[in-house]
Amino acid sequence: MVTAKVWVLKKHFEGFPKISNFDLKEIELPNLKDGELLLQSVFLSVDPYMRPYSRRDMKEGDVMIGTQVARIVESKNPAFTVGVFVVARSGWRTHFISDGKDLQALPSSWPESLPRSLALGTIGMPGLTAYFGLLEVCKTKPGETVLVNAAAGAVGSVVGQLAKIWGCKVVGCAGSDDKVAYLKKIGFDEAFNYKTVTSLDEALRKASPDGYDCFFDNVGGEFASVAINQMKKYGRIAVCGAISQYNDTVPQKGPYVQIPMIFKELRMEGFLVTSWNNRWEEGLKALLKWVMEGKVKCHEQVTEGFENMPAAFIGMLKGENLGKAVVKV
Amino acid sequence: MVTAKVWVLKKHFEGFPKISNFDLKEIELPNLKDGELLLQSVFLSVDPYMRPYSRRDMKEGDVMIGTQVARIVESKNPAFTVGVFVVARSGWRTHFISDGKDLQALPSSWPESLPRSLALGTIGMPGLTAYFGLLEVCKTKPGETVLVNAAAGAVGSVVGQLAKIWGCKVVGCAGSDDKVAYLKKIGFDEAFNYKTVTSLDEALRKASPDGYDCFFDNVGGEFASVAINQMKKYGRIAVCGAISQYNDTVPQKGPYVQIPMIFKELRMEGFLVTSWNNRWEEGLKALLKWVMEGKVKCHEQVTEGFENMPAAFIGMLKGENLGKAVVKV
Repeated sequence: MVTAKVWVLKKHFEGFPKISNFDLKEIELPNLKDGELLLQSVFLSVDPYMRPYSRRDMKEGDVMIGTQVARIVESKNPAFTVGVFVVARSGWRTHFISDGKDLQALPSSWPESLPRSLALGTIGMPGLTAYFGLLEVCKTKPGETVLVNAAAGAVGSVVGQLAKIWGCKVVGCAGSDDKVAYLKKIGFDEAFNYKTVTSLDEALRKASPDGYDCFFDNVGGEFASVAINQMKKYGRIAVCGAISQYNDTVPQKGPYVQIPMIFKELRMEGFLVTSWNNRWEEGLKALLKWVMEGKVKCHEQVTEGFENMPAAFIGMLKGENLGKAVVKV
Repeated sequence: MVTAKVWVLKKHFEGFPKISNFDLKEIELPNLKDGELLLQSVFLSVDPYMRPYSRRDMKEGDVMIGTQVARIVESKNPAFTVGVFVVARSGWRTHFISDGKDLQALPSSWPESLPRSLALGTIGMPGLTAYFGLLEVCKTKPGETVLVNAAAGAVGSVVGQLAKIWGCKVVGCAGSDDKVAYLKKIGFDEAFNYKTVTSLDEALRKASPDGYDCFFDNVGGEFASVAINQMKKYGRIAVCGAISQYNDTVPQKGPYVQIPMIFKELRMEGFLVTSWNNRWEEGLKALLKWVMEGKVKCHEQVTEGFENMPAAFIGMLKGENLGKAVVKV
């Protein structure tokens, strides 16, 4: 008999999530039936989407939604061998039982030397979000100028590096000087701290006086309102996230977008990476290759201890992480 | 020697245009040189775009921008015969001289019985705006539900009828009961007066409980904010106009669009019909055919007298017209 620890949503978030919204519980797992396997979480992911999706997909008392890299510790399913690592979508749990259907093997070419936690970040959902967002939504072309915000985050840092690989000029914004230094280190052409600039409008104009062809938006809100006025004719805006709005209790307002949309003939497209579920293998293969070649660098903010999951989640929403925020069990 | 009357922009518009923004002047036209021709405006167009473009493209004292159907009254250019009608972009003038370069002949198959004023409306720029906006921006498919506002206007009325030809369900909104009756008469499945409904949100839900695949937006502002929340997954919003915002002295604000854009994976695209300049012939041919077959019905609001151009323009901005607003000289 195995005891799993789980984090449940005790009370729906109102505004910014608090530690008191969560409850740590213990669950006795039953013995395995034929076809089942027991898994132990090794790394768990905390991601912005959990904030809006908690309201849509969960009720109070449910185990928090989420993804992990897990190790198979016991198997009554001949298709799965003990010791193998997989990506699962089993929520905030230390242990869980699966019939194997929703498990995703790490790419077969995954090198031993590479941290498996990257399967939750650059070589996982966030990396794929950057890949398909730039390739299929922005339809970025060589020579174009790409703007990305939350640029030192799990998605943004990959967006900038892929845009560089694809021959673009890249401008990134982040919320601390350390993050800005990191962006310059990984090859961003221009980077600035949006919290300390006198005027975001001026900082964006200075970084690219001719404007922007593509804007990969992870933030929404006021940032997006300023950026839209600096798009070039036929510019594309990939709306990936709106982290500045997820904790609003009353929806924020900003200037209507229609006039710049019309007169600059802009395209704005919201997207979820799940729309390319049938192309994940292609994306993961490309990302793994670039990481191994050193063309895409990865940084992770690792929080130790399952008991710190709510703190890691809240810290990530506050922008305390550089790169991908993960929790090591 | 011919004396042309012209309307000049005396003072840039601040807020809603007023008669006092305009000045009627007389200009003596010189004798024709070789290669030139003298034209007389027969119908002049008043269109919403003139409001935002006046600020962008004109200075005080300039002749108002605009388009006309004109008749060649004198020609020293062998390529142009006296008596022929053309579409010109010579602004608000009764007479003008041209070297022929920017003149556009009416389609060769134009029947004698058809009012030539339609070359400024359904079989002209507004009709083409509906055609390319639906075909290339909305990418409307048979069986989809299309929402259009300002639906009894020059563009909206064509949008609805084309969507019906292409096998869609069409919901239209307009600002008077007469307009709503007209929309039903020309085949809209659902139509309502947005000014008299208790709740726009409820009225839109009632007209299409499953939501909307395509939204052809001529209005922007609050209407657009309500409609975006009723788009279906992967919905497309063609942003054609923002007549509710053109006269703002301070930009209006509304709820940020990012959250519905992301979670419903919407595409919003602003467009100008000039992006399809190389396909006007295709569009005009199709529109002319549908008009001749009775599949697209046309209504015009004709104001008599060149001296009434400012009043016709202001009336159009106020939504006083049913169908295309034109001025007969």
